[in-house]
Amino acid sequence: MNTNQGKQTMVFDKKVYIVSAASIVGKKEGEGPLKKQFDQVVEDPFFAMKTWEEAESKFVEESSLLAIEKAGLDKKQIRFAFAGDLLGQLIATSFGIKNLEIPFVGLYGACSNIALALAMGAMTICGGHADHVLCAASSHFGSAEKQFRFPLEYGNQRAQSSTWTVTGCGAFVLSGKKNYNSGDRNGGKEDNMILIKGATIGKIVDYDIKDAQNMGAAMAPAAAHVIYQALNDYNKKPEEFDRIITGDLGMIGKKLLEQLLKENKINISKNHMDCGMKIFDSNEQDTHSGGSGCACSAVVLASMILKKMKAGEWNNVLFVPTGAMFSPTSFNEGQAVPGVAHAVWLSTED
Amino acid sequence: MNTNQGKQTMVFDKKVYIVSAASIVGKKEGEGPLKKQFDQVVEDPFFAMKTWEEAESKFVEESSLLAIEKAGLDKKQIRFAFAGDLLGQLIATSFGIKNLEIPFVGLYGACSNIALALAMGAMTICGGHADHVLCAASSHFGSAEKQFRFPLEYGNQRAQSSTWTVTGCGAFVLSGKKNYNSGDRNGGKEDNMILIKGATIGKIVDYDIKDAQNMGAAMAPAAAHVIYQALNDYNKKPEEFDRIITGDLGMIGKKLLEQLLKENKINISKNHMDCGMKIFDSNEQDTHSGGSGCACSAVVLASMILKKMKAGEWNNVLFVPTGAMFSPTSFNEGQAVPGVAHAVWLSTED
Repeated sequence: MNTNQGKQTMVFDKKVYIVSAASIVGKKEGEGPLKKQFDQVVEDPFFAMKTWEEAESKFVEESSLLAIEKAGLDKKQIRFAFAGDLLGQLIATSFGIKNLEIPFVGLYGACSNIALALAMGAMTICGGHADHVLCAASSHFGSAEKQFRFPLEYGNQRAQSSTWTVTGCGAFVLSGKKNYNSGDRNGGKEDNMILIKGATIGKIVDYDIKDAQNMGAAMAPAAAHVIYQALNDYNKKPEEFDRIITGDLGMIGKKLLEQLLKENKINISKNHMDCGMKIFDSNEQDTHSGGSGCACSAVVLASMILKKMKAGEWNNVLFVPTGAMFSPTSFNEGQAVPGVAHAVWLSTED
Repeated sequence: MNTNQGKQTMVFDKKVYIVSAASIVGKKEGEGPLKKQFDQVVEDPFFAMKTWEEAESKFVEESSLLAIEKAGLDKKQIRFAFAGDLLGQLIATSFGIKNLEIPFVGLYGACSNIALALAMGAMTICGGHADHVLCAASSHFGSAEKQFRFPLEYGNQRAQSSTWTVTGCGAFVLSGKKNYNSGDRNGGKEDNMILIKGATIGKIVDYDIKDAQNMGAAMAPAAAHVIYQALNDYNKKPEEFDRIITGDLGMIGKKLLEQLLKENKINISKNHMDCGMKIFDSNEQDTHSGGSGCACSAVVLASMILKKMKAGEWNNVLFVPTGAMFSPTSFNEGQAVPGVAHAVWLSTED
């Protein structure tokens, strides 16, 4: 691991609050261990639309509207939307955001999208360019399998190393001011408010992984790099974070990540968690290595992670969504799958 | 046209300079009217690589390195790269940026990418999060035709309303300080320095265009919206800009744009220019409606536009790259092609 790097972290020296969060997921996610923590579970994988792609757009639109409503705002008060998905030309997001009529910055970092969205959104709020922005990321099992692997109708057999793309969308409203009208504050003023303190932008890291069914291995080196860099930039030790939470490494990626960091004298095994390993019960739900997709880290953040932070159980979290730069075109042309990851420091207000 | 909008503009109140620009283009572009203004013309459409996609990545890498070199910097001094292309999962950009080892924010706004890159890059510099950032956007005729329409080998006949995707990449280095070491300053300190004063983020605008060979019509309404909004937000009249320059509307889109704005009592016909109509000689080069692609506006900015501004011929330019949210998947599923556009205010230092 090449650790000879300059600073990669944006530090937000003005307060940037996550004032609301919304998570809408599919049926399988709604049957998993976090089922009670999501805002809405949609049983119909088509969400009453005609195609997987339109269904995913519906998840984007509905989650965004719910986050805005929870913040006690109207969509006209949201100055910019930062969002992305996995599909070519970001169609899930662009068709989903279209109806909201919010100025739109499309982002692509594969399954790390929500980190880019939070980073750019927080920079916008910190810079005084907006009062409120929307950040969102989505994925859909049907649209992802169709694009990246095999259409579901083929009945393709899945490798044990493969992950299961999460269906859903996580959406967040960021503001420079606390918003006590927000319907997202369970107990009113007593809950902790969550701040975004900084964001570390990752590099594309290529370990020459050519197994399309083992994205965890493609992403782990990128996660290791950005965690190493974030700890360096903040001058912090792993144990100063209650949790270091990766996006969708799954079981194989988690092992690799911890090993790579250990080789660089960093031990995160005590406080590492992976969203992909929390969202499904891999034994009961046959999801093999775990959950994946942009929605994986986004909906786990919007549910479990923020709830634990609001309740005071965790005060500092390094949130590290992970992405595999996997494209059917480049892959079929013999290219490897590089990884990318970005780290967002979330903190309860002190 | 719905003109009932809130502010959509980020104003950069600290100085953000474009300290260098690089344009590397393909053979056809090198035979067009701007041939003498590009930094490099690459005769081989494969750029000595094996596939169209790898060739496009090479354009990204080489242009980025050239821009960094012109700025008198080393790639390690570039803190973040903001870039995007048209291909699914941004493979042209991500494989191109990978070797540079610069922390990477992937952006997608179709052919409007360079505007998003400049906007996010300028916000980063303005916020003090970096000394130097890289912004780039690329496209390639071969990779775009293969993905969006028909592989070149089919010998498909082109409609008169269709545009020709520009092969190349435009790359820029932004800094918070002037850089007199920059090799990009022709005559040394005498040239004007170019500032990014603000950026207006556009909404996705859908006029229900379903003709994949007429992207100008899909994009013109989005361009009209964002120009209207930028003029409103800055409280300026069109004639206060020396030029209002759209990305790749082509002849049909240009007419529609001017007409839509005229209906809203704004006349830009005297100072409007479209990059797509400048890069090729459509009579001599058989490019029909004009040039298009992310590289179209990016390489025209990196050559003709900045040169005229440096020379003092133009002092204020509203640069409005335009994008069509065209995806083969959504299009084949019967969806229309919405448009998007973002406006960047460029100004010589006063």
